Amino acid sequence: MTDDRSGMSRRSLLGAAGVGALAAGAAGGYALGNTRDDVVPDTDSLPVDFDGRHQAGIVTPAQDRMYFVAFDMTSEKRDDLVALLREWTAAARKLVRGNDVGAFGAVGGSPFGPPEDTGEALGLPPSRLTLTIGFGPGLFEKDGEPRFGLGGLKPDHLTDLPAFSGDRLDPAISGGDIAIQACANDPQVAVHAVRNLVRIAFGRASVRYSQMGFGRTSSTSTAQSTPRNLLGFKDGTANIKAEDTKDVSDFVWARTGDGPDWHVDGTYLVARKIDMRIETWDRESLEGQESIIGRRKGSGGPVSGGDEFAKLDFKAKGKDGEPVIPEKSHVRLAHPDFNHGAKLLRRGYNFVDGSNGLGQLSAGLFFISYQRNPEQFVKVQRSLAGSQNDVLNEYIVHVSSGLFACPPGPGAKGFWGEVLFA
Amino acid sequence: MTDDRSGMSRRSLLGAAGVGALAAGAAGGYALGNTRDDVVPDTDSLPVDFDGRHQAGIVTPAQDRMYFVAFDMTSEKRDDLVALLREWTAAARKLVRGNDVGAFGAVGGSPFGPPEDTGEALGLPPSRLTLTIGFGPGLFEKDGEPRFGLGGLKPDHLTDLPAFSGDRLDPAISGGDIAIQACANDPQVAVHAVRNLVRIAFGRASVRYSQMGFGRTSSTSTAQSTPRNLLGFKDGTANIKAEDTKDVSDFVWARTGDGPDWHVDGTYLVARKIDMRIETWDRESLEGQESIIGRRKGSGGPVSGGDEFAKLDFKAKGKDGEPVIPEKSHVRLAHPDFNHGAKLLRRGYNFVDGSNGLGQLSAGLFFISYQRNPEQFVKVQRSLAGSQNDVLNEYIVHVSSGLFACPPGPGAKGFWGEVLFA
Repeated sequence: MTDDRSGMSRRSLLGAAGVGALAAGAAGGYALGNTRDDVVPDTDSLPVDFDGRHQAGIVTPAQDRMYFVAFDMTSEKRDDLVALLREWTAAARKLVRGNDVGAFGAVGGSPFGPPEDTGEALGLPPSRLTLTIGFGPGLFEKDGEPRFGLGGLKPDHLTDLPAFSGDRLDPAISGGDIAIQACANDPQVAVHAVRNLVRIAFGRASVRYSQMGFGRTSSTSTAQSTPRNLLGFKDGTANIKAEDTKDVSDFVWARTGDGPDWHVDGTYLVARKIDMRIETWDRESLEGQESIIGRRKGSGGPVSGGDEFAKLDFKAKGKDGEPVIPEKSHVRLAHPDFNHGAKLLRRGYNFVDGSNGLGQLSAGLFFISYQRNPEQFVKVQRSLAGSQNDVLNEYIVHVSSGLFACPPGPGAKGFWGEVLFA
Repeated sequence: MTDDRSGMSRRSLLGAAGVGALAAGAAGGYALGNTRDDVVPDTDSLPVDFDGRHQAGIVTPAQDRMYFVAFDMTSEKRDDLVALLREWTAAARKLVRGNDVGAFGAVGGSPFGPPEDTGEALGLPPSRLTLTIGFGPGLFEKDGEPRFGLGGLKPDHLTDLPAFSGDRLDPAISGGDIAIQACANDPQVAVHAVRNLVRIAFGRASVRYSQMGFGRTSSTSTAQSTPRNLLGFKDGTANIKAEDTKDVSDFVWARTGDGPDWHVDGTYLVARKIDMRIETWDRESLEGQESIIGRRKGSGGPVSGGDEFAKLDFKAKGKDGEPVIPEKSHVRLAHPDFNHGAKLLRRGYNFVDGSNGLGQLSAGLFFISYQRNPEQFVKVQRSLAGSQNDVLNEYIVHVSSGLFACPPGPGAKGFWGEVLFA
């Protein structure tokens, strides 16, 4: 009766759970390998490296599912913040390798105390879990007063995003002192990770809001096909991809001189919940929808012709003398050519939060973008926002907003945000 | 510029979307095959037969994701109900084969009208989508008056479930005239299906409530491993499995004489949203959790010993003379031996609806069970409900309730519920 308590890790349970192809020793994480060489591992299940120079979950090929959570600090003590970040990082290192949190995990500890891990991911592989952290403006100062001794370290760019025309932001689901993006190919793995990080935070930080995303709406690798958003269109065809190393360098990672030294190799995370009036959209004609987006619904190719990845021909004119890609189409307004070259790395997810009590589904896009400078997002969003611009605004409304400064990767031994406390 | 409008189906887009292994002719559905024989198809993506004697989505091996929706009729006309059921069935037949709804689909129709299909599943395989319909008591009569000419056809068993001790039901997410359970291995496919059924219902029925479930909590086939609920325990070890043909026959499908003739080969669907106080649960000791459930958290085996599928030894006593499987443990209270032999086929899903504004996650289990007679559920739930019984009630609360009579399968040419209008 005690044999299932002696140091059992998620890995040693794999066999019993039918994922035996990837079973490794009880003490070892997924990344250690030990895969049986007569079985092809499922690459969608494998771990993603956590210890890099940059945080994972940004240029990592976008996983299928997401759970995003924003926290507010409930403690004002610097030591509590440092301890929390250390404990979170230690837990994250275990989670991304498919292990339980804590020294003994979900079932290996004393039966007379609460388990260290909540257990719902026992037997599940790492599923390419990434955990990505960002710090909101309020972590550095609040009401003009510095917090946690970090007052002088707040990047100038880390302020609330400006108001955009048409915004209907709900403060209860906006902002936050700390954000964590959990992405994985199995939503249970993402939920398990967030739940255990929430639990570790007890007494120091609590959940401000959280959002499930069921389907990725962007590709971040040329190896991925372009997914569709709930407007039914391919989304992210022209997104920055991990393989575009120049774009990644120019537009994603912060450099020396961009801001405070601690932020070098970090980035900024913008999160915006976008409600879609899908019932109204669905009543628009196909031609209308394609004109509003500027792309074909089927192929994703520009309305100016060609396949999905064909160049957008903004100069082409129709028989009526008007541009074939309408001047107020989404694809044109968002294009770098019309935004001083600004590009974003988008990493959003489709969501459905049940229904809205009006006989309709409550659905949309949880927009996430990463950029070296939040001004990149501001430029593009200024172009898009407001009913006089993007015609798409008749069908979407931004209901939340968050901006977070993501520190660099923790390296092999560091902790999230350690650079803030050097 | 018009080549993507000429009868393009989801299947013909597969190649472009990187799922080329399963591409078939533009006119053919997924079930027609035409797979290239040099590629092993992904069985998680394949279609499930819709046209059987029984509805699919019940003993079908439980898919990974679910989207459940309940409708209220907004029309009182019998013809509208019949037309809606006909149109829904035609759409469902297309959806489960991985095709768009309508004659022309998402991009094949006239550009000057709204597309027939919303398009977000273009390029996605069937993903084992099942659509399962049930009829609530209110479809047959309301305020004592018959509706739709169906007054005499309401099964006696089809009434609101009795109140159970501890229930905190929210009427806004309970009941409904019609329920549809969409299950698939890709949540985008399930969402797409529900959205398009909602759209077809316009002017005749509207959404009362809907619920996303991200992870299955039961197995319905011996070929599946047992998943875990958000208490961290394996759930559904002793569930009825498709392979238990005697149990399926005895406990799932309605027979001649059980009720009205139209319901033969149908079943009853019970849906209960169960909120979990996961933060409180997580503070319970491992031994406490295992005593409350009556099973080991790691292996899923009974606390009386043995592996997951070992027989529960209710007679075994500990040194203290008390039963090793506590009398008020969940597994004992729910066991057929203590419920006049009643068994259910469970098919629930874990959910997270973001957070609850109190610094916690809003999480739980959307319980679904199928049974030949709702009394099977009532017996088990009476055993479990109330704080004097199942100790688990300190950690869970039922917040919604629905009972629906599911008609038999539509056969090759029928429509959902056609038997009601014969």
